[in-house]
Amino acid sequence: MVSKSQTKLITSLQQKKYREQTGFFVAEGPKVIAELLNEGLTLQSLFSTDVSQITNENHFRVTENELKKISFLKTANTAVAIFEIPKRKPVQNSGLIVALDAVRDPGNLGTIIRLCDWFGVQQLLCSEDTADCFNPKVVQATMGSLARVQVNYLSLTEYFDQTELPIFGGFMDGKNVYSEKLPKNAIVIMGNEANGISDAILQKITHKITIPRFGKSQKTESLNVATATAILLSEFRRAIEK
Amino acid sequence: MVSKSQTKLITSLQQKKYREQTGFFVAEGPKVIAELLNEGLTLQSLFSTDVSQITNENHFRVTENELKKISFLKTANTAVAIFEIPKRKPVQNSGLIVALDAVRDPGNLGTIIRLCDWFGVQQLLCSEDTADCFNPKVVQATMGSLARVQVNYLSLTEYFDQTELPIFGGFMDGKNVYSEKLPKNAIVIMGNEANGISDAILQKITHKITIPRFGKSQKTESLNVATATAILLSEFRRAIEK
Repeated sequence: MVSKSQTKLITSLQQKKYREQTGFFVAEGPKVIAELLNEGLTLQSLFSTDVSQITNENHFRVTENELKKISFLKTANTAVAIFEIPKRKPVQNSGLIVALDAVRDPGNLGTIIRLCDWFGVQQLLCSEDTADCFNPKVVQATMGSLARVQVNYLSLTEYFDQTELPIFGGFMDGKNVYSEKLPKNAIVIMGNEANGISDAILQKITHKITIPRFGKSQKTESLNVATATAILLSEFRRAIEK
Repeated sequence: MVSKSQTKLITSLQQKKYREQTGFFVAEGPKVIAELLNEGLTLQSLFSTDVSQITNENHFRVTENELKKISFLKTANTAVAIFEIPKRKPVQNSGLIVALDAVRDPGNLGTIIRLCDWFGVQQLLCSEDTADCFNPKVVQATMGSLARVQVNYLSLTEYFDQTELPIFGGFMDGKNVYSEKLPKNAIVIMGNEANGISDAILQKITHKITIPRFGKSQKTESLNVATATAILLSEFRRAIEK
C-alpha cells in the first residue's frame, strides 16, 4: 500500500519546486524504471501492482486504484518509482557540448536529450529558464538517455565568458554548415522556440552557421529546435567520421 | 454571425470522415489563413471578430463567444476559416520524394511536412493509415508548408511496384548514410513510430541505410521519426550541393 505521506511526496514531485527541495523525481513503467536502475540511479522507493517486481524492502505492492492515484500518466502503467536526482558533475570543457537557451517545451527537451545520447554528446547545458529535465514528461520520453546525458542548469553567459571552446549558433545569415570545417571540441547553442537565441547570448557566439534552405518559398517557417539540433549534431559527427 | 448549419459544418470538420465527404478543412488564426490564401487555396468562408478582415461576401463578422464555439483551439484566435481541400495532382516520378508508412502522430506529420518544405521536397506520399494532413493540428503546425508540399494518400506497395526510383529506408544494419552516394531522384521511406517499416514495404526497399550512432550505449532508443527524417533529408540535399 501507499502511505499518505508517500502519496503526498509523489504528487508534489510533479512540480519543479518540490523536486528541488527534496532531491527526488518520479519515473513510471517497468521499462523506464529498469533503464534508470541499469544506469546506476538510486531508487528511493518503488510502487508496483506486479508482485514479481517486489524484491526489496523499499518496494511496495499497491492495488490498481492506488497506482492510479499516484500516477502522472493518463493510463497508469504497472509501476511508479521515486529516484534520487543524480549529483551533477562540473562541466568539462571538452568534447561536443549542446547548450539550450530558454527551450521551454518538455517535448523538445526530451527529443534533444535523446539526440545527444545518440550522437554521443555527454554534456547538455541549459539556461535556468529551460524546461526541467526531471519534469515527468521528459523522464518518460527520454528513458535511459536521461541518465547517460549530464544536464547542467547554469548561466550560459557566465559559462561562455570563461570557456575557450568555439561557440556555434544557427542563423539565417550564417555560413553554410555543409561546407564549414567543424571541430571535435565545440559548443552548439540552440535558441528558444519562438524567439531564437537571446541578445545576451548572441554576442558570445564565435561561429554563425546556417542549414541551407532548399525550398523555393522564402516563407517556410524556420526548422523547429529539435529538428535543427538533429541536423547540426549529425553534421558535427559526420565531420569526425570522415 | 454564424448560422446553425455553418456551426455544424465547422464542428464536423474535426473528423476526417466529414472532411472527405465535404472536401473542406478548417484553418485558424489570421497568420495561418493568410499563408494559405497566399498559396492560392480557395476560401469557402471566413469568420472573424476583427471587422478589418471582413472584406468579402463570404466573410462573416462574429462575436468572441461565437468564435469560441467554432474554434478547435484551447484559446480561440480572432478568425476561423473553411478552405477547400486542394485537388491532388498525380505523383511525378522524379525529384526527392518522402514516403510515410503509418506515421500516426499529427505532430510528427506536421514536422515532416515543414521539413519537406525546407528541403524543397515537393511530394510526400502517405500510406492510407498515416495521419491525415488536414487534421486541424497538422494545419496549425504546418501553416503555408501544407500548401507547398503535395501530400498524396495511396497504397505504398502498389506505388513502389510501378516506380523505377531507388527506395531508401533507414535500418540499424544499413549502410552508413554519411558515406553512401545519394542520388538526386529517390524515395526515402520512414516507418511507424512504434513498429518501424512494415514487412510488406520492407521487401520493396532497394537501399538500406543507417544514421550512425555515436553514443557508447547500445540502449539508446532509436531516433524518433521526425528527427531521423530531418537528418536523412539533410544528407540527400548536401549530396546535391557538394
